[in-house]
Amino acid sequence: MLDSLDKKSGISLYQQIYEDIRGDILSGRLSEGEKLPSKRALAERLRVSLVTVENAYAQLSDEGYITARERSGYYVRYSGGAVDAASLSAEPQYNLSDEEKDELSGGASLFPFTVWAKLMRRVILERGTKLLVPSHGCGVWELRCEISRYLYRVRGISVSPECIVIGAGTEYLYNMLIQLLGRDRSYGTEDPCYSKLSRIYAVNGVSHQAVSLDAQGMSVSALADSGVSVAHISPAHHFPTGIVMPISRRRELMYWAEQGDDRYIIEDDYDSEYRWSGKPVPSMFGMDRTGRVIYVNTFSVTIAPSVRIGYMCLPERLVELWENRLGFSSCPVPVFEQYTLAEFISGGYFERHINRMKKHYRRIRELVLQVFTLFEGTTISEERAGLHFLADICGNADEVMSFCDSCGIQITPLSEYFIRKADSDDRYVVNYRSADEDSLSRYIKEKGR
Amino acid sequence: MLDSLDKKSGISLYQQIYEDIRGDILSGRLSEGEKLPSKRALAERLRVSLVTVENAYAQLSDEGYITARERSGYYVRYSGGAVDAASLSAEPQYNLSDEEKDELSGGASLFPFTVWAKLMRRVILERGTKLLVPSHGCGVWELRCEISRYLYRVRGISVSPECIVIGAGTEYLYNMLIQLLGRDRSYGTEDPCYSKLSRIYAVNGVSHQAVSLDAQGMSVSALADSGVSVAHISPAHHFPTGIVMPISRRRELMYWAEQGDDRYIIEDDYDSEYRWSGKPVPSMFGMDRTGRVIYVNTFSVTIAPSVRIGYMCLPERLVELWENRLGFSSCPVPVFEQYTLAEFISGGYFERHINRMKKHYRRIRELVLQVFTLFEGTTISEERAGLHFLADICGNADEVMSFCDSCGIQITPLSEYFIRKADSDDRYVVNYRSADEDSLSRYIKEKGR
Repeated sequence: MLDSLDKKSGISLYQQIYEDIRGDILSGRLSEGEKLPSKRALAERLRVSLVTVENAYAQLSDEGYITARERSGYYVRYSGGAVDAASLSAEPQYNLSDEEKDELSGGASLFPFTVWAKLMRRVILERGTKLLVPSHGCGVWELRCEISRYLYRVRGISVSPECIVIGAGTEYLYNMLIQLLGRDRSYGTEDPCYSKLSRIYAVNGVSHQAVSLDAQGMSVSALADSGVSVAHISPAHHFPTGIVMPISRRRELMYWAEQGDDRYIIEDDYDSEYRWSGKPVPSMFGMDRTGRVIYVNTFSVTIAPSVRIGYMCLPERLVELWENRLGFSSCPVPVFEQYTLAEFISGGYFERHINRMKKHYRRIRELVLQVFTLFEGTTISEERAGLHFLADICGNADEVMSFCDSCGIQITPLSEYFIRKADSDDRYVVNYRSADEDSLSRYIKEKGR
Repeated sequence: MLDSLDKKSGISLYQQIYEDIRGDILSGRLSEGEKLPSKRALAERLRVSLVTVENAYAQLSDEGYITARERSGYYVRYSGGAVDAASLSAEPQYNLSDEEKDELSGGASLFPFTVWAKLMRRVILERGTKLLVPSHGCGVWELRCEISRYLYRVRGISVSPECIVIGAGTEYLYNMLIQLLGRDRSYGTEDPCYSKLSRIYAVNGVSHQAVSLDAQGMSVSALADSGVSVAHISPAHHFPTGIVMPISRRRELMYWAEQGDDRYIIEDDYDSEYRWSGKPVPSMFGMDRTGRVIYVNTFSVTIAPSVRIGYMCLPERLVELWENRLGFSSCPVPVFEQYTLAEFISGGYFERHINRMKKHYRRIRELVLQVFTLFEGTTISEERAGLHFLADICGNADEVMSFCDSCGIQITPLSEYFIRKADSDDRYVVNYRSADEDSLSRYIKEKGR
């Protein structure tokens, strides 16, 4: 722990204390349960005011790194890995029923709700009756700016806030995209794909083709044959096959789009945050020089499924079309949620949360992969990305199923995601988003001997 | 004011004190600026604990009836009519720019934001991480129950919460209705109508007919000739003509719907709250015995345009169809807003707010009508309902326009609302939702002599 602060660094004293203790916890120098110096003692040692130390401790406490015990002081609460879900949701009035826990996938239970609640209260206090004023039809400007900056920092995407449209989740945005791009054209989704997608195109009554995949993702020749003019893909990590589209295929699809003036690519980047080795795969929106790619993402996966906020980045040439065709429509997301989310991103909480989730899922992933090597006759294909992979299960399917069921791993026949009939009888999609770490460890201990 | 409480009445003591003082304020027995007895003195007089009186005063203060002055005590703040907008938004940090005030129509600035903010904080505290659990696709159960009870109390509509669908405003709900009822049919709107409506049908690419009106509303013969199977109407108070559809025409339209198995009526009840004499017009949904009417309403008008919460009541036979076709879709409204609104309704705040708004608009309406009698050569048609009426302005249009502009009355040529060309050159729609009371009174004083 620091013995003095750098008063000329330009970094606030409170921030320096916060960073230092946080670093010590993350590196393991301070371990779980360890007592911190009293606020008064630390203030004296560092020659700063008591308030400065109080602010740093409050921040660490809000974020779940430390906790106060009455009449005793502050203790490290963080385990050095991911934040312990139980300790974060320890307030008794917040206990969830088993059913509700099921609905909250693993990620959401790690969500720093105390921070979110603090920001909500702050937004009520600071914005007051301004919360009654509707936002621009594309969303609150501050949130669009924060998303623009976030995409630049994390995805290397350079997009003006003017091109960002906030919507009530991706379902809503896909409905709007159909209204924007028009109904007199054909939309192509990957086959297999996320089953809601084909239902959205179906209820919208537009022509919709299921385009088959090869090992690299959507097949360009199948795409060309299909006659579609909008290709809806998830190149960062395809659901359900887990394919990460290589750069060669991205270029081919980009070239396909450039060959027709009315061709577009909808890039669904739904779980690009989870990449287990190497650099993040660059987005197609970032590659696009001719205004053909629409980027779509959501906060429902990374924050909580009840937070229905998604967004899309339009190429500039579509922004004007949006204004003309859909400029009359109101933004469906309450301004209150938009301001809260903007503060969550600008305060750095969102990226810290993502990092905690990544650590958590990295551990889970390693355990799940280990477990699957213990199942005889089962082979998996995984591309070191996302929270699901494919498994070929022969012979002992019942054992695998019942184990997965007991520890929160979702396992679904791949065939269920195909739009056209497909022969994939022994292949399963394994989704470990809600897997229970303890059950996995126990199984490995028992069987792995 | 009470001298004793009824301890056997079953009504809590705090509630009795609250009701009594509120009654005295509303009836004018206690007038604005008058001082209330101190909490201690009242507690002694009524022989109740100090806390009981404190709770009653806090409730009255939250709702804007009384206000605390430091080291002096409690005073009546309420004017006996509508709550004074300025006093309700008096907190300096809540001041709005002129532009924001323009966006907030008159009604929203009367909204009891302090109550709303209190309920928001309560929901955060009481629901905690349950706010991260997504609601049913049709919305939070508690809110659907509150809306069901509200409709029964206020509109005499008997509808099960299971038939109520919450959505992000009426635009969103109309989009969903098209997906529910299908695209292989023709939709008919009133001509003229609210201009967003025809745009929504247009961007959805469904066949859409403008059905002409006669003096009683949508013409049944024009409807029959049009070939539409879904009639979209606003019988309680048509926008923009102001027609209140008489019961005879409602019956004719009901009969039309019953003549075809696939015929439906969408009843937009957007401003049924504002009826200036006589009983409220019964809803068509309430008349419907054969499951042909879909009732749609929104809180954006009555609470604030930034609160994007609307709802619809489906006839039972459509609930199953919804489940099959759209059961996969997520509710776009955050659960947080849904719980807050449910508490706003269940606590009685919503109806009190509506009553305050009605009083406010009743005064504004009388002033506007008086002003229009002062304009020579101008005749109006108004059906004692809603916040707008039609005016025929001959000769002195410039004077009328510039006056309306100066006091926040919106005035728009009726021709702008027609889908087909129509000859209505001198007719205007006068909307006084945001009219300024003082300007109106001043004008009447100056010109009325």
